[in-house]
Amino acid sequence: MTTIAPASAVALQPTTDAELEQLLAAAQTAAAPLAALRPAERARLLDAVADRLDAAADQLIPEAEQETHLPGARLRGELKRTTFQLRLFGEELRDGGYLDARIDHADAEWPMGAPRPDLRRVRVPVGPVVVFAASNFPFAFSVAGGDTASALAAGSPVLLKAHSGHPGLSRLTAEVVTSALREAGAPDGTFALIAGTAAGAAALRDPRVKAGAFTGSIPGGRALFDIANSRPEPIPFFGELGSNNPAFVTEAAASQRGAEIAQGFVGSFTMGAGQFCTKPGTLFVPAGYGMVEALRDAALPPAAPLLNERIQSGYTDVLANLQSNPRLTVLAQGAGPLADPPGPTLLLTTAADMLSEPHALQTECFGPTAVVITYDDESQLPELAETFEGQLTATVHGTDSCQVAELVEILARKAGRVVWNQWPTGVSVTYAQQHGGPYPATTAAGSTSVGTAAIERFLRPVAYQGFPQHLLPEALRGDNPLGVPRLVDGRREA
Amino acid sequence: MTTIAPASAVALQPTTDAELEQLLAAAQTAAAPLAALRPAERARLLDAVADRLDAAADQLIPEAEQETHLPGARLRGELKRTTFQLRLFGEELRDGGYLDARIDHADAEWPMGAPRPDLRRVRVPVGPVVVFAASNFPFAFSVAGGDTASALAAGSPVLLKAHSGHPGLSRLTAEVVTSALREAGAPDGTFALIAGTAAGAAALRDPRVKAGAFTGSIPGGRALFDIANSRPEPIPFFGELGSNNPAFVTEAAASQRGAEIAQGFVGSFTMGAGQFCTKPGTLFVPAGYGMVEALRDAALPPAAPLLNERIQSGYTDVLANLQSNPRLTVLAQGAGPLADPPGPTLLLTTAADMLSEPHALQTECFGPTAVVITYDDESQLPELAETFEGQLTATVHGTDSCQVAELVEILARKAGRVVWNQWPTGVSVTYAQQHGGPYPATTAAGSTSVGTAAIERFLRPVAYQGFPQHLLPEALRGDNPLGVPRLVDGRREA
Repeated sequence: MTTIAPASAVALQPTTDAELEQLLAAAQTAAAPLAALRPAERARLLDAVADRLDAAADQLIPEAEQETHLPGARLRGELKRTTFQLRLFGEELRDGGYLDARIDHADAEWPMGAPRPDLRRVRVPVGPVVVFAASNFPFAFSVAGGDTASALAAGSPVLLKAHSGHPGLSRLTAEVVTSALREAGAPDGTFALIAGTAAGAAALRDPRVKAGAFTGSIPGGRALFDIANSRPEPIPFFGELGSNNPAFVTEAAASQRGAEIAQGFVGSFTMGAGQFCTKPGTLFVPAGYGMVEALRDAALPPAAPLLNERIQSGYTDVLANLQSNPRLTVLAQGAGPLADPPGPTLLLTTAADMLSEPHALQTECFGPTAVVITYDDESQLPELAETFEGQLTATVHGTDSCQVAELVEILARKAGRVVWNQWPTGVSVTYAQQHGGPYPATTAAGSTSVGTAAIERFLRPVAYQGFPQHLLPEALRGDNPLGVPRLVDGRREA
Repeated sequence: MTTIAPASAVALQPTTDAELEQLLAAAQTAAAPLAALRPAERARLLDAVADRLDAAADQLIPEAEQETHLPGARLRGELKRTTFQLRLFGEELRDGGYLDARIDHADAEWPMGAPRPDLRRVRVPVGPVVVFAASNFPFAFSVAGGDTASALAAGSPVLLKAHSGHPGLSRLTAEVVTSALREAGAPDGTFALIAGTAAGAAALRDPRVKAGAFTGSIPGGRALFDIANSRPEPIPFFGELGSNNPAFVTEAAASQRGAEIAQGFVGSFTMGAGQFCTKPGTLFVPAGYGMVEALRDAALPPAAPLLNERIQSGYTDVLANLQSNPRLTVLAQGAGPLADPPGPTLLLTTAADMLSEPHALQTECFGPTAVVITYDDESQLPELAETFEGQLTATVHGTDSCQVAELVEILARKAGRVVWNQWPTGVSVTYAQQHGGPYPATTAAGSTSVGTAAIERFLRPVAYQGFPQHLLPEALRGDNPLGVPRLVDGRREA
């Protein structure tokens, strides 16, 4: 294994224009050979990166602890998730379903009114992608996170814009990724780290870059989205921005297990010091069922340091603003709610107040704060749900006899994931996961940034009409040498 | 059958603000009940529209002939294609594969490092869509065309912005669609016609509208794309804009069947008077193989009237501009190339000239004009191919022994569809069709506007976590009552 220099030895300097030009040229050069690899060969690259990251854990974790203030156990779990994710995309490649391969044989009698030519369609990589790392998951949504894994799996080279919150870890991780790829035989230019806001924006503007991915704030994500779309050649920009993640407790659920729900909610909104994009920011509870009291009396966890100074000051600004809103009162609060580290805060208001001023009361407060809202009658819940913009998640705590079909229908229209009797904070990496949602949750509601379907973001379809076998991509040849699942003449092959 | 008033009896007036407000409100109201229909129920709606359009052919065709100057036989063929397309989306709904249903059962041992919850993912309609009709296919890309069919199939209500080129036909067709939907029991507001540029833009800006689709020019499409993306809540905009559709003839193909290729090319670039978005606008031929002579001497079809005055004047402007370019000479020309109707024109230049000024010589000239380019050596073809922007199609005429793998690889990177030894002008409606491509061919390279995959544009995924059976969408229930294909725990169900 290559020896990794201690991160402190070399700071992460902003990428210069000349360096960026070199990296963009290398990414463009890598695009064709990376795309030409068989899916199983790219799977081997992802496995190599995962193996090397696992092996480097004892160097990576201390650096992450130091830079993010997150506990070691959480970081080790996150690294495990990250390498699992890389390997899961490898499995996806070996399966081949992601190619959505389709073959229509020529058909002189095709009832459209004209003969059907031989048409074969497969997904190909879009080309170089710039990925903007997040601060709150320094492994799973950063250098070797889901965006990188899915773009590389698709066959698209990655320029990774490091997050300034963990520069040393970013550099260390990038060195592991780069050397693993090199040793596994990936084309030069398959992956590179860049640093600095200007370099990130310049990369996104560059005509060689064909897509962008981002996890972060609404203003930051929107600014990059606007850059991507105002290019002479606009490109897709997959931004995961902000979400309030409302949760609704029915009367029956409050009756049956109000205390348990209150405890679960406190655990969820304070998890990771409230720095999850899926943190439940609003909890609707029925008035008069003892839930307000249970929440008031719940044991709040101790203050925990936030990721960095910018997050800390942003958090206290938003919280101070919320606390000054006359519609909100403090329901429960840890010691030093505006101190560093901040104790958790629960604010309280009513459904009527939320309906009067939904936008202000639904502001995302990134950190350990949430708002509890009392309602008088379950029939208000659909109207309350309608006040929300697009969300990553929406949660209902109910019982099997609750009449919540309308509420669930509204929430499924607003959110990418609806959750029943659980909490949204965990985002499992699976085949059926959907981590996305209508704006401002994301800039691309049709996509997910977690789960195997995340690979689709970095692919586009190409049809081959009338081609001889030897010029077809392997996935489209008659003998199906890759053994991928296909739709042939409209029917799924066994 | 409802009697349809003659189109001339009522002109198509621009939609007023008040009318638009009513139609938008109706579309929003229709969204939930339309989405709630079972796929097979929506299939029945599409079948009803198709049946009624077929039955109204003798009223629709004369109106179309009068407004578009297209021949009756062509229009009857296009109507057949249009109703076939509606029924094919019905089949797609009955199949259910478009739902991409995925089920992950809860798994305490999921190797990610945390237990996997029960997660189930399905695609749901995005909500109301505004569709901007094209002028050149008054049936297949207009009121009841592919965008409308795929949006309704997805379960998204449609506001159809009529093209000013065939207002009477638009109104007649919309009446057939609307009454067919009403009689078949579709929710009120499922479909409505709007007219006027201002109303179209206003609809696209309206927060109730969740996606846009368009077929037309680059400037028009880009303006609408910019509106869609600059909204407070940006929405996806699926625009099919412009394409040059280059075709490349190898030396061996020119030797073996140069005259046949020349004849096929003339037929393709003059088909529909050159008013196809897939018209081959550029033909690369080897110098010294007699192809220039064959093209010069080929019989050009007689002048045919263009769709309307705006197309005619746009065509003559672009052609006059091309003819004034000193790099281009006239190779062959029908009578009255700048007259109305215009005779076809073939221009000639060399590979060296194309490389000097690619952008000017690749300008799309919508009408019966194409540019022939001579090259000296096949090794130039990759470099020439690289000069093109994103394309709907790219074509190669070769033989099985030609070394064209690199050329095909480049063209597949540039275009949504690559064609071998055929012509791109026909766009078959099939399962594997891909009618799209990188910008400026379209504004969304990951999507297609023709073929069954076109439905994906108007869907977005939602995951249900931990839900009881009775609150799940039918496609995600354990007993699979709809019988849709599913991915269960990462494996395709038999």
